[in-house]
Amino acid sequence: MTDHHLPTYADVEAAAARIAPQAHRTPVLTSSTLDTRLGAKLFFKAENFQRMGAFKFRGGFNALSRFTPEQRKNGAIAFSSGNHAQAIALSAKLLGMPAVIVMPQDAPAAKLAATRGYGAEVVTYDRFTEDRQQISQRLAEQRGMTLIPPYDHADVLCGQGTATKELIEEVGPLDYLFVCLGGGGLLSGSALAARALSPDCRIYGVEPAAGDDGQQSFRAGKIIHIDTPRTIADGAQTQHLGEITFGIIRRDVTDILTATDTQLVDAMRFYAERMKIVVEPTGCLSLAGAEHSGLDLRGARVGIIISGGNVDLARYASLLNGTL
Amino acid sequence: MTDHHLPTYADVEAAAARIAPQAHRTPVLTSSTLDTRLGAKLFFKAENFQRMGAFKFRGGFNALSRFTPEQRKNGAIAFSSGNHAQAIALSAKLLGMPAVIVMPQDAPAAKLAATRGYGAEVVTYDRFTEDRQQISQRLAEQRGMTLIPPYDHADVLCGQGTATKELIEEVGPLDYLFVCLGGGGLLSGSALAARALSPDCRIYGVEPAAGDDGQQSFRAGKIIHIDTPRTIADGAQTQHLGEITFGIIRRDVTDILTATDTQLVDAMRFYAERMKIVVEPTGCLSLAGAEHSGLDLRGARVGIIISGGNVDLARYASLLNGTL
Repeated sequence: MTDHHLPTYADVEAAAARIAPQAHRTPVLTSSTLDTRLGAKLFFKAENFQRMGAFKFRGGFNALSRFTPEQRKNGAIAFSSGNHAQAIALSAKLLGMPAVIVMPQDAPAAKLAATRGYGAEVVTYDRFTEDRQQISQRLAEQRGMTLIPPYDHADVLCGQGTATKELIEEVGPLDYLFVCLGGGGLLSGSALAARALSPDCRIYGVEPAAGDDGQQSFRAGKIIHIDTPRTIADGAQTQHLGEITFGIIRRDVTDILTATDTQLVDAMRFYAERMKIVVEPTGCLSLAGAEHSGLDLRGARVGIIISGGNVDLARYASLLNGTL
Repeated sequence: MTDHHLPTYADVEAAAARIAPQAHRTPVLTSSTLDTRLGAKLFFKAENFQRMGAFKFRGGFNALSRFTPEQRKNGAIAFSSGNHAQAIALSAKLLGMPAVIVMPQDAPAAKLAATRGYGAEVVTYDRFTEDRQQISQRLAEQRGMTLIPPYDHADVLCGQGTATKELIEEVGPLDYLFVCLGGGGLLSGSALAARALSPDCRIYGVEPAAGDDGQQSFRAGKIIHIDTPRTIADGAQTQHLGEITFGIIRRDVTDILTATDTQLVDAMRFYAERMKIVVEPTGCLSLAGAEHSGLDLRGARVGIIISGGNVDLARYASLLNGTL
């Protein structure tokens, strides 16, 4: 895909107008403790306070808002056991259209119940014998539904970029921006917004050290595929970037960093103890990356995107106790 | 003490102007889940995001701001192992005056370190053989320092009232207001603000069921003393209300409710799971009281004051797991 097929900041602006009536304008938090420690001024965009608890609502709602009347009648379909599923389910409900979410039959009961709670139909599959993409495509064809992928989709990633748009509009230009990286929807959308609103900002994606396909891809100049990584950052267990997301990332992002699970837990504990917020493991990537980047952030204005706060409470409690 | 000796809303307004340069204007949060469950519109004033993690900063900073040059030179003294200690220590640091905090020698090392971290001198005592009030008064006399009690002090309680002032100014008049109750500083200050800004608002204090001295006092029309209650709400383990706080509470408050430790843990889990915020056990009193009050809140606009978020992480993790 060449650059001129990639979405632009104008698409992020259009997404912002589209989602404004339903998405939360999430707060920007600060921490004098961390500012003192790093000698910088940090601004945290708290997407854990977004509807359904993560930034994914922005992209999901933007994508479904653009459906034609015909698409709207038949509804949306998504395969995910995580935040994208909730985002599509909630967005479909708000827009009054049907939604099917394809989830593994051994997904946590709470997640199945939450998805059904938004009014979506849940279709389960066997992770060991069935292919979720095939199932989803077959259902989409049979029912005329529109499949919305979790990140490699212009409307999805432009919706995600609205969080960084809000951040920079609220606090002004940034010297650095750190963004959690899985498939690249949040990072590529953020990059479109930051390039437009704060052109000198250095933009870093942060992915799990165990799954550094993004870093490998960035350095190789082509998309590298890996096995599903073992990491507590369950929202970033992607095997590869998308065609569209990588096209933007390779052009607009400064570099890709990694964070270990131990660093994620340290960040999670800091968020709970000092900032009084619950952040899911994946959402801790950006802060962990900023703290352990080796970059000299002294005197800099730094944006940190917190992607979400959805974590099973028992799991959260055990991570706070340092049990990986 | 007769009514005309009690502080008034004008004192809360003066406190608000005094603390504005240093105190955070904390956010007001909402929860569509809880609104749906209760059929009401709830507004949460999140004082867990206040400096040093609790509303106590408001009262401490207001009280120390009013010191004469002579008082300022000799500094402030407080006895507390909790949020009041941190509030006085931080306020003294910001105002450039000395502070002594009298704490039990077996207080958690983290709390001793945090208090010293704010630059305060910590004087320890033996909880089993020594009286902290006597020690504090002797030190105050020897060094010419001013003792600031944790709640029964006009400047302290008027500072605390600024949280409710901000809440009502931001969201408009309320039908109900629920406030955490220990010694009554937060409740009495909140009552002054609510009576002035939302005259028809029904105001409820919520204290631990195991320590219902406030409810007993309210009903008896005089201050009742109890033994130190056993409850996870460590910020509300007071044995009695103050003369000034009770004077305002008996006049302006609608009633005093209680919440069990189990109800507090339920509220704490709700805050973490659905609202993504860390709230200390004492800070959960207001929501637990609102939920279990038996009051019909349908259609009402309800204010909930979250008092703070300071809780040891290991303790917090075990409470999230339901271990009392």
